[in-house]
Amino acid sequence: MFSYQEILQRVEQEISNLSFNTPPENLFAPITYILSLGGKRIRPALTLIACNIYDESIDSSIAPALCIEVFHNFTLLHDDLMDQADKRRNNPTVHKVWNENTAILSGDAMLITAYRLMAGSPSTHLKEMLDLFTVTALEICGGQQYDMDFESRTDVTEAEYLEMIRLKTAVLLACSLKLGAIAGGASANEADHLYQYGLHIGLAFQLQDDLLDVYGDTATFGKNIGGDILSNKKTFLLVYALKHGSPEQKNELYSWFENKTFDPAEKIAAFRRIYDDLRVNEVTTNQIEKFYDLAGQDLQQLNVSEDRLSVLKETADLLLNRIS
Amino acid sequence: MFSYQEILQRVEQEISNLSFNTPPENLFAPITYILSLGGKRIRPALTLIACNIYDESIDSSIAPALCIEVFHNFTLLHDDLMDQADKRRNNPTVHKVWNENTAILSGDAMLITAYRLMAGSPSTHLKEMLDLFTVTALEICGGQQYDMDFESRTDVTEAEYLEMIRLKTAVLLACSLKLGAIAGGASANEADHLYQYGLHIGLAFQLQDDLLDVYGDTATFGKNIGGDILSNKKTFLLVYALKHGSPEQKNELYSWFENKTFDPAEKIAAFRRIYDDLRVNEVTTNQIEKFYDLAGQDLQQLNVSEDRLSVLKETADLLLNRIS
Repeated sequence: MFSYQEILQRVEQEISNLSFNTPPENLFAPITYILSLGGKRIRPALTLIACNIYDESIDSSIAPALCIEVFHNFTLLHDDLMDQADKRRNNPTVHKVWNENTAILSGDAMLITAYRLMAGSPSTHLKEMLDLFTVTALEICGGQQYDMDFESRTDVTEAEYLEMIRLKTAVLLACSLKLGAIAGGASANEADHLYQYGLHIGLAFQLQDDLLDVYGDTATFGKNIGGDILSNKKTFLLVYALKHGSPEQKNELYSWFENKTFDPAEKIAAFRRIYDDLRVNEVTTNQIEKFYDLAGQDLQQLNVSEDRLSVLKETADLLLNRIS
Repeated sequence: MFSYQEILQRVEQEISNLSFNTPPENLFAPITYILSLGGKRIRPALTLIACNIYDESIDSSIAPALCIEVFHNFTLLHDDLMDQADKRRNNPTVHKVWNENTAILSGDAMLITAYRLMAGSPSTHLKEMLDLFTVTALEICGGQQYDMDFESRTDVTEAEYLEMIRLKTAVLLACSLKLGAIAGGASANEADHLYQYGLHIGLAFQLQDDLLDVYGDTATFGKNIGGDILSNKKTFLLVYALKHGSPEQKNELYSWFENKTFDPAEKIAAFRRIYDDLRVNEVTTNQIEKFYDLAGQDLQQLNVSEDRLSVLKETADLLLNRIS
């Protein structure tokens, strides 16, 4: 079995082996650029790790792992354009380095490239893996659409919010694991349990991301605190506060939404005061724990010895314990 | 064998059977919308027609035909956004009916949907068809990128121009035919000859489209005359004139490029005068004839009786004889 470090090294090596040096340069250079910005590579790592649970060789999982990482970066490229974000991983976004049209077209080429990579999967499982990837990719588009739809709504329910992050974030982690399991020769039952595990870890991960925006430490979070608050983003915390807050608290939130000229620190402090009053930190932490526990139960359904799951558990804990 | 009318009816029926009634509505409604705007459906028709050359049943070619039509409309959706076009087939474009972000995201969902449809192809040929489609889709992105790159250049050569339209237009017609041939059980050799035929017809078609923008009849062309001229589009005619024109003619063209406030009719007349002087109509017509003849030679390579090619020839002539 490969260690977490060995898995990551293999992922980085395979990504750096991807070549996009064909003309036209303006189409492919942005792909090389965004893939070079790094990131945790958590999704391709999960694919290799899931494969390695069932197979000592992880070679058969390389193609789907690369597909997933290229696809994930494609979604970042187009999402950054839609959000008009200037920075991605402390570097200028593709539409800033090049322009908006290049971001659209290079993103399209990345999505096609993801399928090109998937088509390199062992042909015995190709159709199954392709169908899973396609369903997942469409779900992620749906999640992004819901996220955009939520921007103009103040009545988003917690259930709607959880469904949105299931689609936007969790299904790709779940798909990454299931693809690896299929490549590694796992039974359909095993692959499905790993899929469920990925969903629950993914939901916990996104809720934690929401929480860290308010209560995290800038140094370890890797993003600026309060970014979601400043952009009125409908996080789990805000959705909860808009539902459970007093009329006064809701009105205060509404008036911040309308206010276009504000002191950032003041807005963040105001939201945080309301969140503190409503104990949103505790509520969100409980929700995270619930999904983490469900993930643990998913693992218990697997028909493999405990030691084959050590790297997977280590990876999930690294993903979820960013506060530390 | 099916007649051209029967093929078209089947295509329309299969497209109308596609259902995108799943939530979120803002993601899928634009897909239904753009597919409902019509168009000649030439690409899916070619897939069915190529299949029908080799197989009395065309059922196996439906999945790739739908993939190609959805993909083609995806390229129109994103191209219209990149070109900031207001109209598509006399209707407002998707980014006008909805907004730019919806156009990006719904386009992405269409591209994924194209792959979903392709995955429904008979599994014996799936990998081969998938690979052909993927290579073609990447080539088309490359063609679009070259087309955008050409906007800021005045030194585009005729060879570069022909390569751009090969990528942007011709390979999809070629791919449509080859997918149908593969689905119909044609040999690799037959499929390749049909691919070449599609390339040559596609090149002739695009050159004719360039010509009709200047010398066509509005009623039969279906677009406004002079649109390419007004937007300084590097068509074959303009590329030729920039290469073979006198210094005075080139300078006149350059000064029109710079001129932002002009009388449209005056600009069109000026370009046309230069084109007339240089006999660009004749040069372009000769080029079209050359590709049409090459296409004819491709057909002669096929190992099928003449009568099996009647519908294909009829379709190509309909495509190319729009002046009439």
